[in-house]
Amino acid sequence: MSQHTQALTEFLAGLRYEQLPEAVISRTEDLFLDWLGSALASQGAHPIPLFERYAAMMGPATGPAHILVNGQSSSAYFAALVNGASSHLVEQDDLHNSSVLHPATVVFPAVLAAAQDLGKSGRELIVAAVAGYEAGIRIGEFLGRSHYRIFHTTATVGTLAAAVSVGKLMNFNQEQFTNLLGSAGTQAAGLWEFLRDAADSKQLHTAKAAADGLLAAYMTAEGLSGAKNILEGEQGMAAGMSSDANPAWLSDRLGSRWALIETSFKFHASCRHTHPAADALLALMQRENLSADDIASVTTRVHQGGIDVLGRVVVPQTVHQAKFSMGTVLGLIAVYGKAGLPEFHQHSLTDPRIGAFREKVRMALDEEVDSAYPQRWLGRVKVTTVDGRTLSGSIDEPKGDPGNTLSRAELEDKFRRLLAFSGARSDDEAGVLIDKCWRLRQLMDLSELA
Amino acid sequence: MSQHTQALTEFLAGLRYEQLPEAVISRTEDLFLDWLGSALASQGAHPIPLFERYAAMMGPATGPAHILVNGQSSSAYFAALVNGASSHLVEQDDLHNSSVLHPATVVFPAVLAAAQDLGKSGRELIVAAVAGYEAGIRIGEFLGRSHYRIFHTTATVGTLAAAVSVGKLMNFNQEQFTNLLGSAGTQAAGLWEFLRDAADSKQLHTAKAAADGLLAAYMTAEGLSGAKNILEGEQGMAAGMSSDANPAWLSDRLGSRWALIETSFKFHASCRHTHPAADALLALMQRENLSADDIASVTTRVHQGGIDVLGRVVVPQTVHQAKFSMGTVLGLIAVYGKAGLPEFHQHSLTDPRIGAFREKVRMALDEEVDSAYPQRWLGRVKVTTVDGRTLSGSIDEPKGDPGNTLSRAELEDKFRRLLAFSGARSDDEAGVLIDKCWRLRQLMDLSELA
Repeated sequence: MSQHTQALTEFLAGLRYEQLPEAVISRTEDLFLDWLGSALASQGAHPIPLFERYAAMMGPATGPAHILVNGQSSSAYFAALVNGASSHLVEQDDLHNSSVLHPATVVFPAVLAAAQDLGKSGRELIVAAVAGYEAGIRIGEFLGRSHYRIFHTTATVGTLAAAVSVGKLMNFNQEQFTNLLGSAGTQAAGLWEFLRDAADSKQLHTAKAAADGLLAAYMTAEGLSGAKNILEGEQGMAAGMSSDANPAWLSDRLGSRWALIETSFKFHASCRHTHPAADALLALMQRENLSADDIASVTTRVHQGGIDVLGRVVVPQTVHQAKFSMGTVLGLIAVYGKAGLPEFHQHSLTDPRIGAFREKVRMALDEEVDSAYPQRWLGRVKVTTVDGRTLSGSIDEPKGDPGNTLSRAELEDKFRRLLAFSGARSDDEAGVLIDKCWRLRQLMDLSELA
Repeated sequence: MSQHTQALTEFLAGLRYEQLPEAVISRTEDLFLDWLGSALASQGAHPIPLFERYAAMMGPATGPAHILVNGQSSSAYFAALVNGASSHLVEQDDLHNSSVLHPATVVFPAVLAAAQDLGKSGRELIVAAVAGYEAGIRIGEFLGRSHYRIFHTTATVGTLAAAVSVGKLMNFNQEQFTNLLGSAGTQAAGLWEFLRDAADSKQLHTAKAAADGLLAAYMTAEGLSGAKNILEGEQGMAAGMSSDANPAWLSDRLGSRWALIETSFKFHASCRHTHPAADALLALMQRENLSADDIASVTTRVHQGGIDVLGRVVVPQTVHQAKFSMGTVLGLIAVYGKAGLPEFHQHSLTDPRIGAFREKVRMALDEEVDSAYPQRWLGRVKVTTVDGRTLSGSIDEPKGDPGNTLSRAELEDKFRRLLAFSGARSDDEAGVLIDKCWRLRQLMDLSELA
């Protein structure tokens, strides 16, 4: 085992709630509320009911852990599975930029299910979630851009992040964390290929990452051993699934850098790769007082990762594909001034103005943007107007990024809108949940969140 | 989707029991008995009870499918999980040479659990298992040697083989098989890194391959879509996990070549990579009438894959590592004339003659052997005797290979020995199970096998 993996597992074993800065604790509460909203927003939407039916077929009829979208209970494994599927559907869950990991949708389903199963408190959940974020983000950074080119990092690394959070909940020592990484890492899977068919694998990925990570932790607690060097070994994750791995990330400023607070909230309901351009276009249109009809063409200068993920979708056939269509997202921004869930569901596929605007948009690789990525997600657009002007817009930090984050009032508003969208809870019930999340550190019984 | 994937899914959807040659049907019965013996042989052995406890924690208390090692019942998912773990522990399950896939330990746990759940017959199980073998073997061949260098093919490809067998049991059409491959392939995981620590991941791999494959099939039946080109696509399995993939293997002589009957039975209880050398040494010692004490040194000339897998273990610390130690295996052959489970458990770590012989053995890469691999597993040994002679031994087809296969009498004997080893069943009960396996094609109720 290298010094880097060793430092990471030592940090995870030693981490205490008392050592968390207040900003980390309160941001964890923010992230938890934001995650809960994403999970409840997908109630009833394909393919979530398929996961609910699978849990009913294969799991116990009742259990200590709660399935959020249907209010039923099950064992921790199936609650993690269904909640993992449901929190990544509406593309509103958080993202850590430099690791390109969506931590909440894998960490919280696993750690909440396990906490309900094991009778842990909100405070214990918080420190366990922090452990999952800190480990997962560093492992994502370690595996690098080459990994993300083929593999869905939230699926692969997500398995380890979920595992670590449950292991922390179980108070694992360093040796157990070493075994845990081995058993989680050797289950890590998830390929981007599904994107070009708009297939349902994205939900399968987060469901499995959360559930497999939980499985790894429970089995490690029982005594299952794992590879000691799964991250860096000659036949480990980096060897098999990356060509630019850098082990130094694994131990990067442990205990002083809190990667959790670098996580971005999603403001637009689309793939995060579209957000910098969306914000840059919006800023330019407001500055120049332009309407959609004033615009002849848009070139957005992007990083290669954006082209890899978004380049596939030409004319979107589904709402989910629309969220991965740069032209559609910019069309919604130009025509409606926003790209939230209602805009996607009501207009993205049917409004001819959106289709027309989409045809005006192209992406181009930009060297400055690409070299800043993934640490910084720069937005750069060039607009040609119908009256012949050429205008440039740029933003350096998209809305929701750490330096431009959402306030608690904005998070509450987003939460209420997500629950109203799916009808999962009334606005009063949403208020009760918000209150509980803001008191997460005091909650003794996490089944209250059901 | 390429013509090769298309041809494969078309073949799978169209396959009928009536089109199976008698040799394929009866070999499937042979393989099923052989698998059942491997599963029952691990009763009580670490880490199998951990999987049993996990199933008890997370699954229903009872169900339609049977966990072989403890006689309990559960849902199909957990039966596949535990039976998948238990059938790969004693290193006695089958192997297909050119794909380097152990098909039985992933196909039969999944298909038996699903058949018990869905009330399918032995005949339906046979054609479903054949589908799993034919698809899995070709996908393993397609991914090539570069895949196996880092990834445990039985884990990765095993997920697809298990999925296909359950999909066939459910009478999937071609479109469903396409979706199924997508959902199974994007879950494919399993790294060799655990070997160097003698960690428990091998059982986790086969458990998860069987269970994840089953999950993919059940969820496809519910309507989950998957990537259409998971095998060959730009962000699919080959793109991420192979550098020498050849799509032509996917459609290789479908319906005329029966890859299932190319599968080898294991005679020695060790890693298959040791078998060619073991048989070559045994033949040489018998021919020259040598004892272990007559031998000063052994050089076994092997393929690179053997060095990759066996090269890690120098002095084995566990029985499982001993099965991956070329020197230990050849020591058992030299001293005891065989390398079965009793020899491994009673002598491999403690008999000083085995330790001393191990020090006399070295492996060397051989160009002829390496270029024949993985289609043919050639055994080549050079022995120096204490009286100064240099002798060569060679075999071209190890015991258990298709051209040197085990008879039903030998399979029965192996089965009885495996059950006696673990004490899982009495010899009379073993006889009853043997009889049922030889009548597998007539069995209407597969819960009889519990």
